[in-house]
Amino acid sequence: MFANRQTSDHVSDHSRTFGVHTDSRERVPLASTALDRWALERIQRMVMSAPIRFVLWDGFELASLAGPAVATIRFKSRRALAGWVWDPELNFGEAYMSGGVEIRGDLVPLLEAVYRALGVSRRRAWWLWQRSNGARAARENVHRHYDLGNDFYRLWLDREMLYTCAYFPAPDATLEDAQLAKMDLVCRKLRLAPGERVIEAGCGWGSFALFMARRYGVTVRAFNISSEQVAYARDRAKAEGLVGRVEFVEDDYRNVRGAYDVFVSLGMLEHVGLPDYPTLGDVINRSLVRRGRGLLHFIGRNQPAPLNAWIRKRIFPGAYPPALREVFERVLEPHAFSVIDVENLRLHYAKTLEHWRRRFDGAAGTVAAMFDQRFLRAWELYLAGSQAAFTTGSMQLFQVLFARGDSNDVPWTRVSG
Amino acid sequence: MFANRQTSDHVSDHSRTFGVHTDSRERVPLASTALDRWALERIQRMVMSAPIRFVLWDGFELASLAGPAVATIRFKSRRALAGWVWDPELNFGEAYMSGGVEIRGDLVPLLEAVYRALGVSRRRAWWLWQRSNGARAARENVHRHYDLGNDFYRLWLDREMLYTCAYFPAPDATLEDAQLAKMDLVCRKLRLAPGERVIEAGCGWGSFALFMARRYGVTVRAFNISSEQVAYARDRAKAEGLVGRVEFVEDDYRNVRGAYDVFVSLGMLEHVGLPDYPTLGDVINRSLVRRGRGLLHFIGRNQPAPLNAWIRKRIFPGAYPPALREVFERVLEPHAFSVIDVENLRLHYAKTLEHWRRRFDGAAGTVAAMFDQRFLRAWELYLAGSQAAFTTGSMQLFQVLFARGDSNDVPWTRVSG
Repeated sequence: MFANRQTSDHVSDHSRTFGVHTDSRERVPLASTALDRWALERIQRMVMSAPIRFVLWDGFELASLAGPAVATIRFKSRRALAGWVWDPELNFGEAYMSGGVEIRGDLVPLLEAVYRALGVSRRRAWWLWQRSNGARAARENVHRHYDLGNDFYRLWLDREMLYTCAYFPAPDATLEDAQLAKMDLVCRKLRLAPGERVIEAGCGWGSFALFMARRYGVTVRAFNISSEQVAYARDRAKAEGLVGRVEFVEDDYRNVRGAYDVFVSLGMLEHVGLPDYPTLGDVINRSLVRRGRGLLHFIGRNQPAPLNAWIRKRIFPGAYPPALREVFERVLEPHAFSVIDVENLRLHYAKTLEHWRRRFDGAAGTVAAMFDQRFLRAWELYLAGSQAAFTTGSMQLFQVLFARGDSNDVPWTRVSG
Repeated sequence: MFANRQTSDHVSDHSRTFGVHTDSRERVPLASTALDRWALERIQRMVMSAPIRFVLWDGFELASLAGPAVATIRFKSRRALAGWVWDPELNFGEAYMSGGVEIRGDLVPLLEAVYRALGVSRRRAWWLWQRSNGARAARENVHRHYDLGNDFYRLWLDREMLYTCAYFPAPDATLEDAQLAKMDLVCRKLRLAPGERVIEAGCGWGSFALFMARRYGVTVRAFNISSEQVAYARDRAKAEGLVGRVEFVEDDYRNVRGAYDVFVSLGMLEHVGLPDYPTLGDVINRSLVRRGRGLLHFIGRNQPAPLNAWIRKRIFPGAYPPALREVFERVLEPHAFSVIDVENLRLHYAKTLEHWRRRFDGAAGTVAAMFDQRFLRAWELYLAGSQAAFTTGSMQLFQVLFARGDSNDVPWTRVSG
């Protein structure tokens, strides 16, 4: 399909072509000009160490500068090319989503190569201006992602509908087992005891709240601002006869009231945003009794950096994966909470995403029918990009166990999976 | 011995009186005045919630305001009293050391009560002006503490002469076993493999370097600027036939050169000081190969705060126990190191100090003969104060495992003791 003027390396026939012909504005593009070719070289130079072949709409090609290409990127229009030169971080995703760019080869190795290439050259200012995710903005942000329909998520999540990093006791464990192992690991880290009161901030479809009540005999109040998820969770609590022990509250974490033994939050901190970390710290502080302890499970970074602009625009508005020290400084330190134990599960998230992607790809036709091609391609890119971010170390998954600074009711030795 | 005007609670006969009569300037103090009594009340109010009885030289007494007293503090002179009012943080230690203050009751419960009482009321500015511990200053600081003589430390450390927090698999393990367990835990966290090259920064008497070589088959270059310790360590390496595999270098950590698989440092970071953290990060970064990893074991805090002024003056000049985020921000982040695993062993350090103190108290006569009463009292106070700091959560012990941010050669699951 692509002319191959400068190299002889062929993309394997087994590779999948994600591209579809939906770019409507330049159906018969003109032959590429010297300027177009200069632009393509500029793009190539940004990711020089990545083994990628670049092709223009008329067949002009730049071979990989770094050995056999893992993938080929084909610009189908001048518009797509110009977008990449102007703002590659945003328009890589935009062009892929719209079909203005076609990729031959698997997305994950391609994106891994891009991340690795950018990792060395891109030293960006760490500071990111971010608006506070006030209660209304938070609700809108969450609605856009989590209210896409339970039917959609059921297509590719595990049976328990957990949309956070799993814990694989061994790399070949099933996703279902790994999600159960994750929930159990968190409960053991927290040393939940029967009768204790747990507050969960951001409870997804409620599986973890129900798990804690069922397996560890605690009572749980679980907060979530996604109405679709809360409705689903309440139905499950009824079906399992746990209504008296698990209460699902459709409200913002800032409105948590009452006294609890344990504060736990899986995958919510990414949506809180730096400006509201002190508020989260205050909520935790006023919620926990003297011997209270808590666990924060969140996507983070080795260094502060903004989330990819396209992911923020299309997938997770208002999201920010923090460096550990940003959480420590703004959430835990003001109340002298003591960090008991931190575990980085980055490779477990890469594995989780591998499972999700396999199921998602298998359901691609259904997803396209539910939404459209643009949505399908956006989500393919988001899932592949996330997997690549975890395999290349561009993102981390931290579990942070903490307790009140003056409490000696902390574990003598730590648990492991 | 003390008049008891206001309460009837008596200090148990089992308690030890650490006080000795060495305050020479006011042998026959005048009766206390209204001003003296006002000063005593002011001191009492600073630690209002601590159950302590205060007594002046002429028998004037303030009973505990918080239930039965755990100890009695007796000021033997106006000078000692004035010093406490002027700068309690520094002069508590100075007066105890000189004998101007006498304490009836065990030091640890007394200091625990004081730390707990101060914890609530004392919200100090976190910022501490600190000079850089340049190579010369570092050498002087270390000489003052670690070159007190191997004979002195042999009196109260374990057989292996480890002067860092031990790891007690169970609280009733012996100190000898707990120090071996600590060394083994660190090696397992680092996944040392035979033939690997290890750099150790700050190696004490060399036990851990020898342990790594003997048990895990690695080669070690171990740096230390204490000449007494290095001489001792070299003798041990010879005696054990490990000279070819463990090299002890009497030099500053800043002069580490070469490429290593592992960087490890137990109990040195406290002596580095904030201004030199970036330098330490640079040393680690230039020392580690691509799949390199490291472990920092250090005394830290839940919130940034200066070390007690008296400890800095008399025991550890130039020392600073950091908050985790200060280490992350200044040592690890600049080179995008990835935090793999953090463990807080605070209660293990309290237990370690309990063992050290028991041995130290048993050797008190020998210590006084080696040095003098002032030295003995200063060290009694330092060890008791450290134990109280760990039991009350005023200090933490962190083990931080890290790896290069782009290395996937990280453990799939973590180890536990």
